Amino acid sequence: MRAIVCEDGLRFDPAYPDPAPPPGEALVRVRLAGICNTDLELVRGYMAFRGVLGHEFVGQVVQAPDPAWIGCRVVGDINAACYTCETCRAGRHTHCPHRTTLGIQGRDGALADYLLLPQANLYAVPDEVPDEAAVFIEPLAAACEIVQQAHLRPTDRVIVLGDGKLGLLVAAVLRLTGCDLILVGRHAEKLALAAGWGVPVRLADAPLPGKADVVAECTGSPDGFALARALLRPRGTLILKNTYHGALSIDASGLVVDEITLVGSRCGPFAPALRLLAAGLVDPQPLITATYPLDAAEAAFAHAASPGVLKVLMTP
Amino acid sequence: MRAIVCEDGLRFDPAYPDPAPPPGEALVRVRLAGICNTDLELVRGYMAFRGVLGHEFVGQVVQAPDPAWIGCRVVGDINAACYTCETCRAGRHTHCPHRTTLGIQGRDGALADYLLLPQANLYAVPDEVPDEAAVFIEPLAAACEIVQQAHLRPTDRVIVLGDGKLGLLVAAVLRLTGCDLILVGRHAEKLALAAGWGVPVRLADAPLPGKADVVAECTGSPDGFALARALLRPRGTLILKNTYHGALSIDASGLVVDEITLVGSRCGPFAPALRLLAAGLVDPQPLITATYPLDAAEAAFAHAASPGVLKVLMTP
Repeated sequence: MRAIVCEDGLRFDPAYPDPAPPPGEALVRVRLAGICNTDLELVRGYMAFRGVLGHEFVGQVVQAPDPAWIGCRVVGDINAACYTCETCRAGRHTHCPHRTTLGIQGRDGALADYLLLPQANLYAVPDEVPDEAAVFIEPLAAACEIVQQAHLRPTDRVIVLGDGKLGLLVAAVLRLTGCDLILVGRHAEKLALAAGWGVPVRLADAPLPGKADVVAECTGSPDGFALARALLRPRGTLILKNTYHGALSIDASGLVVDEITLVGSRCGPFAPALRLLAAGLVDPQPLITATYPLDAAEAAFAHAASPGVLKVLMTP
Repeated sequence: MRAIVCEDGLRFDPAYPDPAPPPGEALVRVRLAGICNTDLELVRGYMAFRGVLGHEFVGQVVQAPDPAWIGCRVVGDINAACYTCETCRAGRHTHCPHRTTLGIQGRDGALADYLLLPQANLYAVPDEVPDEAAVFIEPLAAACEIVQQAHLRPTDRVIVLGDGKLGLLVAAVLRLTGCDLILVGRHAEKLALAAGWGVPVRLADAPLPGKADVVAECTGSPDGFALARALLRPRGTLILKNTYHGALSIDASGLVVDEITLVGSRCGPFAPALRLLAAGLVDPQPLITATYPLDAAEAAFAHAASPGVLKVLMTP
């Protein structure tokens, strides 16, 4: 099959070995896949990953242990857990120490003609959700993880920092709580997109009204962390949604004195994210900047890495 | 009056000006006061505090706006808030930006014959609680703040790191939840004290069984933070109970990947702490190492700063 392979950089392989599903796993033909910032990091050496890239996809089941799945249009939880260890038994399978992760760790990904995932990871996509929306399920689930971890009250003043793809999707989800939300970013055209969803927006250098009960830090930069901290009220909650390069130097005494709660937040639940898409409560399609064929890997990744670009999709 | 004054170091003043209560405040004769690590830090220049030291006390009301308080044995919340600003109106008076803090910020403290506090800050001490227990109310309230901020479940595996005064009081409070608790420290004799309360204890270099759901970091050292992080399971909660010297360098990506919740925790509620003392559920008196008269300031502070020493008290 054709695949985009991470191996000391990026490479389009027209004849990558066809995957054969082990017991319990399904073979899925990829219909549409997305390029994520994590993919760009992996190409630069993050996680020392080698294999097929990509973890954002919508596909169609070709082969599965339960034939009822065959032909289904699906998305899939990217973490393949053992479901037998203590962590899995405690219901935290996305933290299974034995997990593999689609296109990120120990498992080939979605930027290919086909992929493998455990059948237990699959979710059928409702007919009313087009491929161009379903392909956002993974980052949308990551946005839902915030409200899974922290109690956001409708009366809370909430600031989302960062108008990249994740920041926009986080704002799209958090606006549903009825909270007093502001999305703060550096790009007028990206902020305009969120404004189209009814999210109040503000450029990063404009003054902000008062302190927030909750700040979701989606910039992934040390400056973003410092700004998030400055915008938070005492006893407020700071959600860390991005990974950072290297160590972050923080004023831990300040966290104690102001009794700040810091919440690290990663992969989220797929079922609620699908419900939001099916109900039309979140429409991520305006985030699509361009769509490339699979063999245009270099061009697609270069485009995805360009300033101002949001989501670049690829069709096998 | 006599007072221990912080002013480029430590000084016993036999003739410090007698305090006169402003409207709304009570004049309290100090019966017994404690020396806290924060006092040692203040002498070294922390917070640039100048004035009478001390924030741990039990006293007797001499003068008050409501005469019903006169003669009462009391403890008092050390944060004197404005009760009119947005933070106070939201119920977070210990974070009032206009607050003064007894013996720490903008307000003379308890290591003196008399002190002043707003009448609203006073709590009557039940007869069954001796002065030697009541004098621990402030750090005991700070220990209660952990269960005020975080939901500790009886099934949780909880590790308290640090066998100093605060770590011991935290262990004494957390053991009441029925959780699977271990206190980890470096001093066999301090651990023995907690073991006397029925707390399972372990020396820091002994191996620990599995990872914890919650770690309360009470060492205040960067090493303690790193150990706390290593002992915590994914999606676990790390309670930061101590302030740190300078900035702390942390692996923020690790917090995101493991979805750790970090909770800064400071002053706590006095009423529950008093209930625990009155019911005999916590008895801090074994923590008392020595008691000095007020004019032995130098000797008392030197003793309090000595290795292995727990609580040093002073009687005016």
